[in-house]
Amino acid sequence: MKFLLFLFVGVVHLLSLNSGKAIYKNDICQRTFQEIKEEIACYGDVAKAIINLAVYGKAQNRSYERLALLVDTVGPRPSGSKSLEKAIQIMHQNLQEDGLENVHLEPVKIPHWERGEESAVMLEPRIHKMAILGLGSSIGTPPEGITAEVLVVTSFNELQRRAPEARGKIVVYNQPYTNYSRTVQYRVQGAVEAAKVGALASLIRSVASFSIYSPHTGIQEYQDGVPKIPTACITVEDAEMMSRMASRGSRIVIQLKMGAKNYPDADSFNTVAEVIGSKYPEQVVLVSGHLDSWDVGQGAMDDGGGAFISWEALSLIKDLGLRPKRTLRLVLWTAEEQGGIGAFQYYQLHKANISNYSLVMESDLGTFLPSGLQFTGSEKARAIVEEVMSLLQPINITQVFRAGEGTDINFWIEAGVPGASLLDDLYKYFSFHHSHGDTMTVMDPKQMNLAAAVWAVVSYVIADLEEMLPRS
Amino acid sequence: MKFLLFLFVGVVHLLSLNSGKAIYKNDICQRTFQEIKEEIACYGDVAKAIINLAVYGKAQNRSYERLALLVDTVGPRPSGSKSLEKAIQIMHQNLQEDGLENVHLEPVKIPHWERGEESAVMLEPRIHKMAILGLGSSIGTPPEGITAEVLVVTSFNELQRRAPEARGKIVVYNQPYTNYSRTVQYRVQGAVEAAKVGALASLIRSVASFSIYSPHTGIQEYQDGVPKIPTACITVEDAEMMSRMASRGSRIVIQLKMGAKNYPDADSFNTVAEVIGSKYPEQVVLVSGHLDSWDVGQGAMDDGGGAFISWEALSLIKDLGLRPKRTLRLVLWTAEEQGGIGAFQYYQLHKANISNYSLVMESDLGTFLPSGLQFTGSEKARAIVEEVMSLLQPINITQVFRAGEGTDINFWIEAGVPGASLLDDLYKYFSFHHSHGDTMTVMDPKQMNLAAAVWAVVSYVIADLEEMLPRS
Repeated sequence: MKFLLFLFVGVVHLLSLNSGKAIYKNDICQRTFQEIKEEIACYGDVAKAIINLAVYGKAQNRSYERLALLVDTVGPRPSGSKSLEKAIQIMHQNLQEDGLENVHLEPVKIPHWERGEESAVMLEPRIHKMAILGLGSSIGTPPEGITAEVLVVTSFNELQRRAPEARGKIVVYNQPYTNYSRTVQYRVQGAVEAAKVGALASLIRSVASFSIYSPHTGIQEYQDGVPKIPTACITVEDAEMMSRMASRGSRIVIQLKMGAKNYPDADSFNTVAEVIGSKYPEQVVLVSGHLDSWDVGQGAMDDGGGAFISWEALSLIKDLGLRPKRTLRLVLWTAEEQGGIGAFQYYQLHKANISNYSLVMESDLGTFLPSGLQFTGSEKARAIVEEVMSLLQPINITQVFRAGEGTDINFWIEAGVPGASLLDDLYKYFSFHHSHGDTMTVMDPKQMNLAAAVWAVVSYVIADLEEMLPRS
Repeated sequence: MKFLLFLFVGVVHLLSLNSGKAIYKNDICQRTFQEIKEEIACYGDVAKAIINLAVYGKAQNRSYERLALLVDTVGPRPSGSKSLEKAIQIMHQNLQEDGLENVHLEPVKIPHWERGEESAVMLEPRIHKMAILGLGSSIGTPPEGITAEVLVVTSFNELQRRAPEARGKIVVYNQPYTNYSRTVQYRVQGAVEAAKVGALASLIRSVASFSIYSPHTGIQEYQDGVPKIPTACITVEDAEMMSRMASRGSRIVIQLKMGAKNYPDADSFNTVAEVIGSKYPEQVVLVSGHLDSWDVGQGAMDDGGGAFISWEALSLIKDLGLRPKRTLRLVLWTAEEQGGIGAFQYYQLHKANISNYSLVMESDLGTFLPSGLQFTGSEKARAIVEEVMSLLQPINITQVFRAGEGTDINFWIEAGVPGASLLDDLYKYFSFHHSHGDTMTVMDPKQMNLAAAVWAVVSYVIADLEEMLPRS
């Protein structure tokens, strides 16, 4: 995932909840909640069949094995790379061979950035070769690098206070990690803020919950009218060390070399497959993850896991001979890491049909042992989703949290479509996120089985209910 | 620490425990256990004073701050390096300035190995640049590297079974991590076993409890009569990936380049300081950690922490104006990571005096929140140590475990001297051990305060008791 947008749409609905059950049961909705509840209860056996197949039956470990084969074969899949292209071709073929319907590719132009060779060496107070990862979209340095003194700050506020000291220096941000959505602002805006006060480059403490000297990359954004300066992430360890050195009055000098380069946009595709609805084929429950990754590790967790449990959801439903009333549409997004480029294109192309989207789902926060579902939508819709999640009692994953989100589905959620995402251990997720450590070693086949079961039950039942999820 | 030797001397004593208390009280020992127990109970106030100074008083965070300054200034301190030499000089001066007694250096010749430039690139089935760390004492490759097919095995047994396949290949060990002392055999003997079956090089899965794509180095040992082949550690992630690839029948080819080189032995020193005993100055309680480290990270945890809580123990005792009956001797070992070279030299030089060593202590398993003390010695000595540890009730660290050990003190323990080591979270320790991640970021000042308090109370009280710890 690129960065979290905690949508507070849900809060509004929470406030209107006061008017309560009376309104709920008597409004224009065709069916009472009691009727819907009874309808959902009838899916107990189907849910059990899905769980049995995914967790204990023939399909167990399938999403893990499929994912391992893909990511071992193609490796990481950055936007604009040959390996992403290859992964899309393989997935296109995989989905066809799996017997899914309407398998096709939807073209998108996507950014193409490459980090090239890069290095950072501390020259003073002692020689120390630092681990870095250039940030996505950053420009490179001149070939001889940028050699400059360092200014260490722990916040944008401190940078403002010490603005006169920043000119001609390399700004090092040693911001503490609070949570991802807050801390990631330093990665995204660090270069712009440093450039505004005359810095030559910026080095950002990796946005990570845990570190073994592991740099964590990600996208950064330049601003019109602000000079573009090279920017990279450094390890938590080096950021803290430089902070200690600076607090002792040591002069720190770094030589930064980055061969990073932005190339012309590349051709790519969102990859689509369906189980076509039996009664309302034009109506859709969208199930998704993204196929691109950063250029380090294997992109197994971010977001191989999400993409592959989404595929698995459709596979499980097909294998059980189920066909929901509405169409289940799998989309494997391209160029999510560059800001949901594939998803934005998809939204532009399909938004005319928005009234037919019952639910948009994305798994992009890990596929470890699920804590439950994050959901954004009306309180009526939430009540229905809670009933559906109660079908997962056999595997004890029934919780519904607020703030369903995902870079790729936020376009729809912001336009009023109910949205759901899978929640699990975010401390673990942000230990490996965007680092060399995002590999199959992090993934657990049993946890993926459970995640796929949740994903399949929710998407199938909601696609099969008599009515679409209410938006108000 | 280099590698754990779980000594089972304790087991023998355990078996003889049956004969029990009767023997204990009536044997030739001058004082009954009850008398010793009462003597130890009198140290309650002293223990509280030490704890107060270390944990809540003026000395709090001192060992952390001292350590940060040293390791930020000199960085990692591998055997034979200029930085180790510099660290020894600084420590010599630090101990003098601290007002400790008999501060001096004892010369030792130590190995000098440097890794030079090194790289490993997977050429087939896909291009993948791998993180590696050459293993200490390994020879290098020819400048053009060694390019060869890979044989992946998960154990020495599998290597034996598949010996005919190994000739002319690079052997990759993907042994699972069970515990350190067992798993480390692959790092130590992997090259020799691979060479015996005709391999050109060996790559060892890092011996680590947790990984974020982090290679963990360490010493390896060649054997006379077996060809020397280059050997390095790879990450858990790459070992597992190659294992999966091999199990699918993929041909794996790696190009390994290592500039590693062994240089002539270098001059170095064990660094010694004392609080001289008031009544039996010739009798000793030895408190120690090692000052050398591997050449990655900062050697903050292994064994900066152990060395600095050992110094702190003497500082605390001195600051409180305490002077035990026996001499408290601080030794900061050199070249522990090469197999306790400094400690072996010290043992050779001082073993004539072995009857005067009451207790040898080493902290080389981390200075996180202590679980307690590991102890090797007679059951009588253990009973005394348990009483001493009960003085640490105010900070709730009172447990005495079996198998006190440390590469540097094992020479004495094996010769019958009681030995103690500090035990804490080994999962955490082996997450960072011998990796780039062994930095101050791992260290916690509050945990170091507690570790120093334990170390100071145990060493002081045992040095001040009327009698030395009994050996039988």
